[in-house]
Amino acid sequence: MTDREPDLLDVLDSERVIAFVIYPGLTPLDLVGPVQVLSQLGPPYRLCVVGEEVRPLETDTPIRIEPSHTFAEVPDPYAVFVPGGAAAALRAMADEAVQGYLRDAAGRARLIGSVCTGSLVLAAAGLLEGKRATTHWTCMGWLKKLGARPVQERWVEDGNCVTAAGISAGIDWALALTARLKGEEHARRVQILLEYDPDPPFGWIDWDNKADFDALGPLLEQAMGDPRAALAGRPDLIKKLGL
Amino acid sequence: MTDREPDLLDVLDSERVIAFVIYPGLTPLDLVGPVQVLSQLGPPYRLCVVGEEVRPLETDTPIRIEPSHTFAEVPDPYAVFVPGGAAAALRAMADEAVQGYLRDAAGRARLIGSVCTGSLVLAAAGLLEGKRATTHWTCMGWLKKLGARPVQERWVEDGNCVTAAGISAGIDWALALTARLKGEEHARRVQILLEYDPDPPFGWIDWDNKADFDALGPLLEQAMGDPRAALAGRPDLIKKLGL
Repeated sequence: MTDREPDLLDVLDSERVIAFVIYPGLTPLDLVGPVQVLSQLGPPYRLCVVGEEVRPLETDTPIRIEPSHTFAEVPDPYAVFVPGGAAAALRAMADEAVQGYLRDAAGRARLIGSVCTGSLVLAAAGLLEGKRATTHWTCMGWLKKLGARPVQERWVEDGNCVTAAGISAGIDWALALTARLKGEEHARRVQILLEYDPDPPFGWIDWDNKADFDALGPLLEQAMGDPRAALAGRPDLIKKLGL
Repeated sequence: MTDREPDLLDVLDSERVIAFVIYPGLTPLDLVGPVQVLSQLGPPYRLCVVGEEVRPLETDTPIRIEPSHTFAEVPDPYAVFVPGGAAAALRAMADEAVQGYLRDAAGRARLIGSVCTGSLVLAAAGLLEGKRATTHWTCMGWLKKLGARPVQERWVEDGNCVTAAGISAGIDWALALTARLKGEEHARRVQILLEYDPDPPFGWIDWDNKADFDALGPLLEQAMGDPRAALAGRPDLIKKLGL
């Protein structure tokens, strides 16, 4: 790649780099919601999107996303955040390039976090042991089996670990994080810029509507694929999850 | 490109293809929010992301997005939707490849629409003449000067034309569109899947908070750059906008 930003590597020491980890098949809204919000943080924060290689990755939509940097190019970010996915998150739990980066870079980072099933990917690297954390509503049981203390909230802070619930929760999470890093006034202004004045056309989720949840069962099962196959390289996780 | 979906071109006639138009510098949440929602429509709908060439495009964040198809490969989609951007949207208003595609493909499409300043890009192609439409809150005056009838709502339907307000409004808009195309029950289930149960940490936007809006002025001006330069190829638009 010749067109990546030339100055990032020179300034890693003086800036607080926030690295979003991506992997094939991820759910792009998990990534893009927070990146759109946090790209307004301004100095000393600087965002990058890191992957094993700089090449376009498939997502679970027709959108393809290319990392701005490789894992090797951003060894010591200030923060490491992981978006989620369905079967793709399971594969990322067993992907040695992703897991190695998380153990090293996220293990040393000042802040770690996730959106949706990104918390399972962090947990697979041993980073959520005993931490209060959240994930997509379908995966709370797995998060517990992986050693975290699951909490069903929109976003959860436990010390240096900030996790968000499913997919769209990343926007709320990123605004809360903006306030933590730059103050509430700044966060409110970013919210106005993004015109984040949500008005779901059919109201909020009715968590008691059993018919809707039952109808989603087959779709969710299909999206997750065969968890044992996805986790084949990690017998320890297959055992923990009781698969 | 060898890895694009091989069967799309064969089935263009039997499926309803929804084409999202992308261009350099766009605001990725305008695209990804709706695509994440609409990717759950299922048959006969099929999404694609079209651009002048299949190569990764910069956005107004560190995320780079690659189209799934070129404009030439998707000449007759069922629907054409346009995400917005800041200065990038102005450049797209004067970009002959984008404008030519909109005049042709969107001109014939059964549905057209936009998120944020994507409506200005549609208007520049003459597609919003006399239509009720919306855009980012900063651009309502421009939308009017370009011939539309601006309405400050979260999303606006006028016949075959469905437009959304700024950036994050694309999620609400896409859920409303899902209901129009597949029924409200389906839309509610997609909402659950995406865990779209918004909880802005500082509440909803206070449109009367003048201090916040005043503080955003310089940032917005910088983001828009030099409109006359961006529109250099379109003296008709410079005149309409009174620049």
